[in-house]
Amino acid sequence: MALRTYLPDQELEAIVNVGDDLVLHGLTICPDLDTITYTLAGLNNEVTGWGLAGESWHVMDELESLGGAAWFRLGDRDLATHLYRTQRLVEGATKSQVTRELSERHGVGVRLLPVTDDPIATVLDTAVGELSFQEYFVAHRHAVTVRAIRVEGAANAAATPDVLASLDAASRVVIAPSNPLLSIEPILSVAPVRERLAARRRDVVAVSPIVGGAALKGPADRLLAEMGYPATCVGVAQYYRGLIGTLVIDEVDAAHADAVRDTGMDCVVTTTVMAEPTNAERLARTVTS
Amino acid sequence: MALRTYLPDQELEAIVNVGDDLVLHGLTICPDLDTITYTLAGLNNEVTGWGLAGESWHVMDELESLGGAAWFRLGDRDLATHLYRTQRLVEGATKSQVTRELSERHGVGVRLLPVTDDPIATVLDTAVGELSFQEYFVAHRHAVTVRAIRVEGAANAAATPDVLASLDAASRVVIAPSNPLLSIEPILSVAPVRERLAARRRDVVAVSPIVGGAALKGPADRLLAEMGYPATCVGVAQYYRGLIGTLVIDEVDAAHADAVRDTGMDCVVTTTVMAEPTNAERLARTVTS
Repeated sequence: MALRTYLPDQELEAIVNVGDDLVLHGLTICPDLDTITYTLAGLNNEVTGWGLAGESWHVMDELESLGGAAWFRLGDRDLATHLYRTQRLVEGATKSQVTRELSERHGVGVRLLPVTDDPIATVLDTAVGELSFQEYFVAHRHAVTVRAIRVEGAANAAATPDVLASLDAASRVVIAPSNPLLSIEPILSVAPVRERLAARRRDVVAVSPIVGGAALKGPADRLLAEMGYPATCVGVAQYYRGLIGTLVIDEVDAAHADAVRDTGMDCVVTTTVMAEPTNAERLARTVTS
Repeated sequence: MALRTYLPDQELEAIVNVGDDLVLHGLTICPDLDTITYTLAGLNNEVTGWGLAGESWHVMDELESLGGAAWFRLGDRDLATHLYRTQRLVEGATKSQVTRELSERHGVGVRLLPVTDDPIATVLDTAVGELSFQEYFVAHRHAVTVRAIRVEGAANAAATPDVLASLDAASRVVIAPSNPLLSIEPILSVAPVRERLAARRRDVVAVSPIVGGAALKGPADRLLAEMGYPATCVGVAQYYRGLIGTLVIDEVDAAHADAVRDTGMDCVVTTTVMAEPTNAERLARTVTS
């Protein structure tokens, strides 16, 4: 969301992964949508990287003392989001509608679009067996070897009309420096997102999440290697080959620029690590120009 | 539960109504089971008559600010019970099993038996349309005229084996001074509870919830009248006719004793209002002797 330093919220639309979604305790939880909503509303917990700042834990503490499943930590106010969403889904609302409602309540100006309202689920075949995304990421802290990744339900899922309209109308499509295999792939796997991107790939720019051969956070580097790609920005380029017109890589990876270009895309070298607001703005200008 | 003043918990089994149960926010909530569990564990809120003492309301406050359905107040620790139950049901446990688990965690010695593990729901046909029990009781504060009451699903529900064993083995079956139409009827409506009680009605004793022509709490008096019964202990006797051997009525209703006996049952007159522990014990001795 570095783009917000450069563009007004109203000109931004974000297509969001729902492959991480889960049903736990009967509640439909959408971690990516919620994290983005909380972040854009300025309510996010910057220390943990998930959940709400200043959260309380009365429900989870009691659930733990009852012997309930407490591995997926849900704060009290965060739980209200899941109760709200679940009830609205029961009433017949779509995930897209609920997302719109929650955005409105929180005064979020960026339009958030779940890629699909159909159920999809990222499933990992690992050394300890098949795991859902959250089991892999949270319960196992992504510390197990992955043999394969699939997006269950993708074949029967359709991108929402809003997503398709957004992909058509956008002057530029930016693939954020998220995990290509876990966070971006579930979006690409919902038809016809991949085709739409490929059709206008000149306008599609991605930012490499791998800097200096390591993921800025999370297991993207290891997963790229496990799936047979170089654990560098070149691996990212190979992964997005045919889908994007430009890959933005960090200055520390300048030596890889030609290898990136060899995959058939432009390569822009700049400071991608957004430690400073000025970097964020520079990156925003870069990907939109 | 006045019986606990006189008998050890281990000798008591309580068959509990589940017609009040509801699914809200995706959570399976069993208000009667929970209230009894909390009360027996000494955790209940004596002021409200429902929920836990010293409860916090972070989730509900946030849900309200999101514009969610907040008419059914769920405290933070209470919510943990519903999350626990819902997850266990998803995992394949029965309501009976979950009840046992929650009782154990809370150190409850009285065995609590949901009358059935099948879904049943008390539905009221009212002046403002059809309402679920909780809509009638909580959202409308039982302040609407009732034309009919039915227990949805009862025809397809079966009493659990534990309930049948309990009804067979008990030396005495006590029908608590709960609302006959709303709280006892859903239990009776699950086959073969009514038949089993009728078959051994000499051992079945009920305590009238109507004292001096008024319900001790709730709308039992008004409902009896709306359903065509006298709003007195005589109405209660008529309602339970053929099912119970004895009705215990309060001293203030002594003049009704003969009318109660005329319905074909014994009538015991005593102090039924349990304002004093000694009253509770006397009542317990009365219903078990």
